[in-house]
Amino acid sequence: MAKKIVIAVDAMGGDNAPYEIVKGAVLSANKNVKIILVGKKKLIENEIDNCDISNIEILDAQDVITNDDSPTWAIKNKKESSLIKALDLVKNDDANGFISAGSTGAILTCSTILLKRISGISRPAIATPLPNINGISLLLDSGANVDCKPIYLEQFAKMGSVYMENVMKIKNPRVGLLNIGTESKKGNAMTKEAYELLGGANINFIGNIEARSIPSGIADVIVCDGFSGNIILKHTEGLGENIFKMLKSELNKNIIRKLGAFLAKPAFMNIKKKFDYSDIGGAPFLGLNSIVVKAHGSSNSIAIKNSIVQCISFIENDIVEKIKTFTNETN
Amino acid sequence: MAKKIVIAVDAMGGDNAPYEIVKGAVLSANKNVKIILVGKKKLIENEIDNCDISNIEILDAQDVITNDDSPTWAIKNKKESSLIKALDLVKNDDANGFISAGSTGAILTCSTILLKRISGISRPAIATPLPNINGISLLLDSGANVDCKPIYLEQFAKMGSVYMENVMKIKNPRVGLLNIGTESKKGNAMTKEAYELLGGANINFIGNIEARSIPSGIADVIVCDGFSGNIILKHTEGLGENIFKMLKSELNKNIIRKLGAFLAKPAFMNIKKKFDYSDIGGAPFLGLNSIVVKAHGSSNSIAIKNSIVQCISFIENDIVEKIKTFTNETN
Repeated sequence: MAKKIVIAVDAMGGDNAPYEIVKGAVLSANKNVKIILVGKKKLIENEIDNCDISNIEILDAQDVITNDDSPTWAIKNKKESSLIKALDLVKNDDANGFISAGSTGAILTCSTILLKRISGISRPAIATPLPNINGISLLLDSGANVDCKPIYLEQFAKMGSVYMENVMKIKNPRVGLLNIGTESKKGNAMTKEAYELLGGANINFIGNIEARSIPSGIADVIVCDGFSGNIILKHTEGLGENIFKMLKSELNKNIIRKLGAFLAKPAFMNIKKKFDYSDIGGAPFLGLNSIVVKAHGSSNSIAIKNSIVQCISFIENDIVEKIKTFTNETN
Repeated sequence: MAKKIVIAVDAMGGDNAPYEIVKGAVLSANKNVKIILVGKKKLIENEIDNCDISNIEILDAQDVITNDDSPTWAIKNKKESSLIKALDLVKNDDANGFISAGSTGAILTCSTILLKRISGISRPAIATPLPNINGISLLLDSGANVDCKPIYLEQFAKMGSVYMENVMKIKNPRVGLLNIGTESKKGNAMTKEAYELLGGANINFIGNIEARSIPSGIADVIVCDGFSGNIILKHTEGLGENIFKMLKSELNKNIIRKLGAFLAKPAFMNIKKKFDYSDIGGAPFLGLNSIVVKAHGSSNSIAIKNSIVQCISFIENDIVEKIKTFTNETN
């Protein structure tokens, strides 16, 4: 029998904590998967009342790291926080992976310090699954490293390829370098050098891609510095939201449009679903010695459950080991 | 009587040249505005047949600079091109401004060399009008300078403010710095320093803005390096196009949805119109000693006409002089 997978969950992170987090954990726990909920025990117990808790454990943590805390300050001064105590479980091999919907900066800093980088990886990357017209692209880095060296992008490309091939089951994933034109000599000093490195790497590099081609699904893995990646990520959310807001306002302008909207509603719902972060799962941090998944800050229980599923797939497919092998093989 | 305004138009630039360009010029010429169409005379004459050409002149130019030409090579070797001959008209004061739908790189390089930068401006910027839910924001730089120093961004902010106040008639335009978070200490080395400079400049600086807030119209002027700006610009086009493509495909899936779509059609049309580049006009290059407007590559005659109108407003409001004064006053 395979060993039970253990996932540590930060019960206090995110806009809807602890209720939705606890509910997501309860939905995910089963005979093969144990969930350790880390956070204020009393609060968690209140939420968990009347649920099947046979595969759930609670680890009490009285402190919480908030968005206002400086991550480097918090790691020294909030040792009793849910984030640090959950990461300690992973560090001590009492859990195989960790998810949180809390502050990205805090999760990134604390997990990098506590779990350490894979040898040969200069910087961990936030790898965000981005919806496109045909499926999902993995965008990395999407915010961990605002100033990047070209070699980081080569590492991002390798890690992203391993992830898409093994977790998302995409054969020979196409890697595109985000740039301001498709020609090889386009871009800034960093992308020009990265282009050369990616061309020589043992990956399926398809060259420079423009931001206009991202929504059509031109690449499975999109590599860029964390500043540009963060811009793409947030712009996708903002533009999607605002187009739907405009649509809603236009469709409510008279009774005929309202009737039309009523008849066409399933079409709108399908598109909204494509962009729904609860279905897509969270963003894994690639390059650490264990799996850490950052769930969307406004995650509901379904989003938490999907992030846990993603975490499990990561563990079952032994992604950390595969990244280690691939990085060392091709270095 | 006010002096007649003269606009030089590159008849050979853009996907729909010369037909749509010539048509746009004919629509714009009147007793107060003379248009000089620069390009292959025979071709232009064919298109212009049967039109009122009393305020139109043709300047023959037998060569064309294409997207494949290196701009620095072209300026030396294609002196008989429509671009260079049109810019010469502006340089020699035979025209007050210039528009082209041709290669951005070529227009930028050639106009910077021939028309020169305003003293005190380190780099000219491409300032693109970007549609938002409530109107238009000006995004600069949107592609001229992929590697920027913080001082450039301060200059972009000042030039953008002058433009929005005087051409778009927005009082005290709000200037936002594109960043990956709203807190003052967020971002990369360049944005952190730019934040300080913008805070001390004589403009209405509202601080850092995230890409997610751009579509809601959070700022009238958005300043950033040309790499990030180009990403925002192209991502807006790509995401808009693909959301409409998905919507079309979903709405065509059955007869009920088709009926709904038919009834709601005016709503969709209004949103499409908001994002229609033909209505919005082109992107002025700010920081040169004359006005140059880059029209969208796929411009039709209406887009060309709107770019010419924009050019005229720029001239009538004496934007070059105002930029000179504002830059020197506040340096």
